[in-house]
Amino acid sequence: MSSYQAVHLVKRPVNVIEASCFELREHSPTELQEGQFRVKQTHMSLDPAMRGWMSADTNSYIPPVELGAVMRASGIGEVVESRHPDFPQGARVMGMFGWTEQAISNGAGVNLVPEGLPAEAVLAVLALPGMTAAQGLFGIAKPKAGETLLVSGAAGSVGSLVGQMAKAEGLRVIGVAGSDEKCRWLVEQLGFDGAVNYKSEQLAEQVAELTPNGIDIYFENTGGPIQQVAFDNMNTFGRVVVCGMIADYNSEQPSAGPNWMQIIKKRLSIQGFTMPDHFDKAPQLMQQVAAYLQAGKLQYRVHVLDGLAAAIDGINLLFSGENQGKLLVKL
Amino acid sequence: MSSYQAVHLVKRPVNVIEASCFELREHSPTELQEGQFRVKQTHMSLDPAMRGWMSADTNSYIPPVELGAVMRASGIGEVVESRHPDFPQGARVMGMFGWTEQAISNGAGVNLVPEGLPAEAVLAVLALPGMTAAQGLFGIAKPKAGETLLVSGAAGSVGSLVGQMAKAEGLRVIGVAGSDEKCRWLVEQLGFDGAVNYKSEQLAEQVAELTPNGIDIYFENTGGPIQQVAFDNMNTFGRVVVCGMIADYNSEQPSAGPNWMQIIKKRLSIQGFTMPDHFDKAPQLMQQVAAYLQAGKLQYRVHVLDGLAAAIDGINLLFSGENQGKLLVKL
Repeated sequence: MSSYQAVHLVKRPVNVIEASCFELREHSPTELQEGQFRVKQTHMSLDPAMRGWMSADTNSYIPPVELGAVMRASGIGEVVESRHPDFPQGARVMGMFGWTEQAISNGAGVNLVPEGLPAEAVLAVLALPGMTAAQGLFGIAKPKAGETLLVSGAAGSVGSLVGQMAKAEGLRVIGVAGSDEKCRWLVEQLGFDGAVNYKSEQLAEQVAELTPNGIDIYFENTGGPIQQVAFDNMNTFGRVVVCGMIADYNSEQPSAGPNWMQIIKKRLSIQGFTMPDHFDKAPQLMQQVAAYLQAGKLQYRVHVLDGLAAAIDGINLLFSGENQGKLLVKL
Repeated sequence: MSSYQAVHLVKRPVNVIEASCFELREHSPTELQEGQFRVKQTHMSLDPAMRGWMSADTNSYIPPVELGAVMRASGIGEVVESRHPDFPQGARVMGMFGWTEQAISNGAGVNLVPEGLPAEAVLAVLALPGMTAAQGLFGIAKPKAGETLLVSGAAGSVGSLVGQMAKAEGLRVIGVAGSDEKCRWLVEQLGFDGAVNYKSEQLAEQVAELTPNGIDIYFENTGGPIQQVAFDNMNTFGRVVVCGMIADYNSEQPSAGPNWMQIIKKRLSIQGFTMPDHFDKAPQLMQQVAAYLQAGKLQYRVHVLDGLAAAIDGINLLFSGENQGKLLVKL
């Protein structure tokens, strides 16, 4: 094997993620041990959660990446050399391989990729985004046909799938996104019942107009100005699923949340969740998502960066909201 | 029957409850119909929820009291005349009789009082406070022995029972109250493991010190400064029961809530509840509370006002925190 490149975390970000947090290093492949296999990664995923993995905050749900270590990421690749019976040479695999062109694995947390699915569909839909959407929607919010769901970050990888699955189950679905173009995509391409740009000055009026029967489920991916507006429109016995707060990930001073009086008056339930708590259900969740995908119910778009080095600046597209679809890196 | 007095709601409060919201009126008893009985009320309960019942806010969980109507309250009394087979003359009954010396009832929502319990114990423990405490603690928070519970409004009617039931179940219990005297009562008389005065300038430090293993259950009765401090000390998979927000009931501008990032990082669940949703479980809940009471596990204190008219100014003791125990009116 020839040498390969990997990106290491060398500094923790304070607010925004600066390029100096990373270092691109050249590596020489080491020899495989019995029970190991070597993966040549073809695509890796860039996700908002990475901001948390980079910081030393010990409250985060999985340990931070150690300084000096290869930065964490999920990806998809091909087994190019194997001393493991379950992952033979030529197999297509997905797993947490990191920001690297090559990785050695013993198979822990690695899954074979179902046949016939392009790498982009696997990373954009089937993997973390789809499982997260399915667990949050069905496992926590428990939607009923005819209810109204509002999802923030609706054009994002998780939000777009939450909305489409809810539509498939007969809910009224309103999306919140950060540009008029994204809003048009949600309504015209994904079939959402409505969409609002959270930068609008008439945000409260628009949400109220689009949810004439109130909101039964608020699927929170962003925080920011939509949070209070959504909260104000919740119905009695409404459910709030808190999956992401991307608007606050880079902020020094966290924004205030809504007053709790409505929680009593409307008997709201608010539940935070992260996918790693539910990895034991991954096989069932993936099957559930694959069924929607195969039935043509899940559209997606990808924003592909070219080459490992492009990830270093590219990750910030997630926080400026400039990515047009699931952010991936082609290696 | 001789004439009797009742207090009517004649104006809705804006912020604090002014005496001009009420009017004391003289009534002549009307004749009983078949299936009715007449109650001479001996004690009635004053509760924080009354502030909500007085306002026209349609989001409240039970309809507001109509202007001109007798103000709502739960109470205990004796049947003095009856044309109802289940509630004979001489029976002791509890129900929502209102701010009145006499009431006519058809039995809906009225229960016979278990024998041998003083009226004060019934209103301070067995009735709304005890059922609310039991439902919130066992039905929602689902405590486990060894966990830590922080309860705000701990010297209040619900909070003091929540803490004592949790102690009986083997939890570490920390109370939050509004005076050093109340804090001493919680620790010395009720056996709480610790108590903090929310007016303390070292509130955050004191809570952190008293909850070395973090907080698993936060039982929220008040809002105010303790809310953020409690939130900051929650453990992963912690449960927050939102039962009351008394600090905000009279405020024009609701205070901000905590930022939601911790909800994800710690996978918190926050659940609002009000007892009227659970009245179908009232018999079981009352039995559960009575068992603690009979086992000597529930101490209580009452602050008794004398005569119906005293309720008009007396209700504000609840919002200034000056009441020393469950606020009752002896009629």
